[in-house]
Amino acid sequence: ARCCARIARSRPFEAAIVVLIMANAAVLGVETYPDLGAARPALNWLEMSFRAAFVAEIAIRVLAYGRRPQDFLRHGWNVFDLVVIAAIFLPGLHGDSALLRVVRVARVLRLVRFSPGLRTIVAALWRSLPGVGGFLALAMVTLYVYGMAGWLIFGRAYPEQYGDIGRSLLTLFVLLSLETLPDLVEQGMALSPWTLVYYVSYVLITVNLLLNILIAVIVNSMEE
Amino acid sequence: ARCCARIARSRPFEAAIVVLIMANAAVLGVETYPDLGAARPALNWLEMSFRAAFVAEIAIRVLAYGRRPQDFLRHGWNVFDLVVIAAIFLPGLHGDSALLRVVRVARVLRLVRFSPGLRTIVAALWRSLPGVGGFLALAMVTLYVYGMAGWLIFGRAYPEQYGDIGRSLLTLFVLLSLETLPDLVEQGMALSPWTLVYYVSYVLITVNLLLNILIAVIVNSMEE
Amino acid sequence: ARCCARIARSRPFEAAIVVLIMANAAVLGVETYPDLGAARPALNWLEMSFRAAFVAEIAIRVLAYGRRPQDFLRHGWNVFDLVVIAAIFLPGLHGDSALLRVVRVARVLRLVRFSPGLRTIVAALWRSLPGVGGFLALAMVTLYVYGMAGWLIFGRAYPEQYGDIGRSLLTLFVLLSLETLPDLVEQGMALSPWTLVYYVSYVLITVNLLLNILIAVIVNSMEE
Amino acid sequence: ARCCARIARSRPFEAAIVVLIMANAAVLGVETYPDLGAARPALNWLEMSFRAAFVAEIAIRVLAYGRRPQDFLRHGWNVFDLVVIAAIFLPGLHGDSALLRVVRVARVLRLVRFSPGLRTIVAALWRSLPGVGGFLALAMVTLYVYGMAGWLIFGRAYPEQYGDIGRSLLTLFVLLSLETLPDLVEQGMALSPWTLVYYVSYVLITVNLLLNILIAVIVNSMEE
Ligand code: NA
Ligand code: NA
Repeated sequence: ARCCARIARSRPFEAAIVVLIMANAAVLGVETYPDLGAARPALNWLEMSFRAAFVAEIAIRVLAYGRRPQDFLRHGWNVFDLVVIAAIFLPGLHGDSALLRVVRVARVLRLVRFSPGLRTIVAALWRSLPGVGGFLALAMVTLYVYGMAGWLIFGRAYPEQYGDIGRSLLTLFVLLSLETLPDLVEQGMALSPWTLVYYVSYVLITVNLLLNILIAVIVNSMEE
Repeated sequence: ARCCARIARSRPFEAAIVVLIMANAAVLGVETYPDLGAARPALNWLEMSFRAAFVAEIAIRVLAYGRRPQDFLRHGWNVFDLVVIAAIFLPGLHGDSALLRVVRVARVLRLVRFSPGLRTIVAALWRSLPGVGGFLALAMVTLYVYGMAGWLIFGRAYPEQYGDIGRSLLTLFVLLSLETLPDLVEQGMALSPWTLVYYVSYVLITVNLLLNILIAVIVNSMEE
Repeated sequence: ARCCARIARSRPFEAAIVVLIMANAAVLGVETYPDLGAARPALNWLEMSFRAAFVAEIAIRVLAYGRRPQDFLRHGWNVFDLVVIAAIFLPGLHGDSALLRVVRVARVLRLVRFSPGLRTIVAALWRSLPGVGGFLALAMVTLYVYGMAGWLIFGRAYPEQYGDIGRSLLTLFVLLSLETLPDLVEQGMALSPWTLVYYVSYVLITVNLLLNILIAVIVNSMEE
Repeated sequence: ARCCARIARSRPFEAAIVVLIMANAAVLGVETYPDLGAARPALNWLEMSFRAAFVAEIAIRVLAYGRRPQDFLRHGWNVFDLVVIAAIFLPGLHGDSALLRVVRVARVLRLVRFSPGLRTIVAALWRSLPGVGGFLALAMVTLYVYGMAGWLIFGRAYPEQYGDIGRSLLTLFVLLSLETLPDLVEQGMALSPWTLVYYVSYVLITVNLLLNILIAVIVNSMEE
């Protein structure tokens, strides 16, 4: 157990796992190409090796807890690791099933856990969320009110874009990229020049809200 | 009256109203779908319940003022609440009229009033407006001068985009999304390579102005 | 002279000129619409009134200098005012000539001079230019080198976009709006996947440069 | 040697080289136009003059090191200069070969070295890279995981965009410009409304990561 604990905490162990995960990601990428031919068996063999290595990794890290292996599950990341690695041995998962592929892709996310730099950044991003919560809520209220107003104004004339609240919200979300602005403005002008008030105010208000979310994020990260 | 005042100021009362407004918004959203069939009566019943609840809410808040109910109208938001709730009982508003729908959508805006977080943000956004006023005025002068110049340069060749000052301003507003830049530049190049000066300078000046408006907003919100 | 000096410095005089310039701008805007019919004489009469008012304004401000009217020309804005107002009386400028229209549109720019707020902002924007000069120079070198490289790589395959250095630079300038990125990347992929290096590096480097120009502007305006 | 050292460090020498490089860049630009006719000999003569001048420049700067000319190669930029200038004399490089053109365009980059302003900016940009490294790594992991997920979700339905990991990554990189968002969202909606989760989360996460990279750059450059 002590030996395992020493290994589990050592830098070379972590570095080896990072390299393994990256190699695993590369193999997953190569497997997406349809015409692999002769390389297929080699890739299968590699996948088996990765499985063995990851099982060994989990075993070492569980053994590191000595007589209290249940403590291993106290950390969220450990649970995630165990689920992602153990899921492959479920009887239902064989061949090319979609769930198996999802599980294998999920392994790549373990990279964040093993890289201290990435872990710090993810934690910082996570902490900055509450500061923008109010703005996001206001953005949602604005989006919803504009969605209802869009349905009232354009619902009959342009059912494709504003036929119900779902389509309205989708149209307004995509409009945030400003990509559809010229077409929507032209469509609106065909109905009435007053529809410009709708689009100009929407763009100004949401761009302003998005800027303020950006500023909230900046102020948050500067305080740290 | 004291009892009403205590209720009107209590957290559970406010929370209940917020939940009611959100449920109301959800019902309004569901009603936009055309094929509701059997759900229609249930939605009508829900709308009636919301009306009763909102009337009760206003009554409690007016009664909270005791012998001086006219003081209720001293706050802008109270007037807005009263208008939005009372408008439903106007004799002209029945069935599916457009105005009734507008009034019902306007109820969703009351969410801002009841959420302290949103109220703070809206107040902060409102206060930051004067700081950007000068930049907005300069942006408008720039837009207008470029609109007139666009009409002088392209008015005859491209009446669709620059036929009068209204179209010019619309073209230049949409150009702010950079969406139509490639087409307009190509169109201009067909006339003369010198039209590039018009578009390049317009993009540089307005993007610079917009950035400075952004900076003014940042500086404003940091001073608070 | 003293009387004129007092008038020229008074707030009501400045306010009146600002209102006149804005009314003039509105009339210029109305005149861009083709079917004015009966309104045409009224507009002509308004234009004549504006001319008389602006001549009176200049006269008052020149007389304010008393016995040394030549001092009037010491300020850049005064020269601009005199040229813009006096140009109308040139013998060659009559009817609907293009130059006359340019001169009339140029009058709108005098708004900046008479509004203290706009004058301050324009001066601040002007002062912030040197701070971004180095970045702009680097952006130009980058653009030129990528323009030459684009001509070497795509010149033969896509003469429309990269046939000579002028077209290359135009293509790369428009690409800054990211608008043409999907088409250019697809075009490049048809030639070789290696062209991705060209586009990805161009987008990353120029976006980074533009961000740094933005940061330089922010830092500049915060130091003030 | 001393004389050469004095010349090499003098401002006029540097200014002359800057002017020469800019003239060289202009000539390179003119040469990209196909119909030069009579100007061709003059351009060739100019190119020969530039070569002679640059050889003289290198000679002076090497001689400035006196008895230890090998010290010249200790600075990275000196090596770059020597390679770019000497490459023209390689026996394989004649006429209009592509490599010769690359070498000649590479000369323009020497502008950065001779302009102290540009050198400072490039050095500052270079120093700011480590600070964004973590975010870039996280952005890459995110891109890769979304690329694999995109292949799993859309690989069969839209092989053009998500047929293999390479195409997935290309689609997601181009999507960063938000240019293809409307089309991809529509394509996804045709498959299932749940694909919106994929696109909305991708846009939110990557835009948030890009904003944080921007903030890291700002904080970095403010600390200097
Ligand atoms: Na765009
Ligand atoms: Na776009």
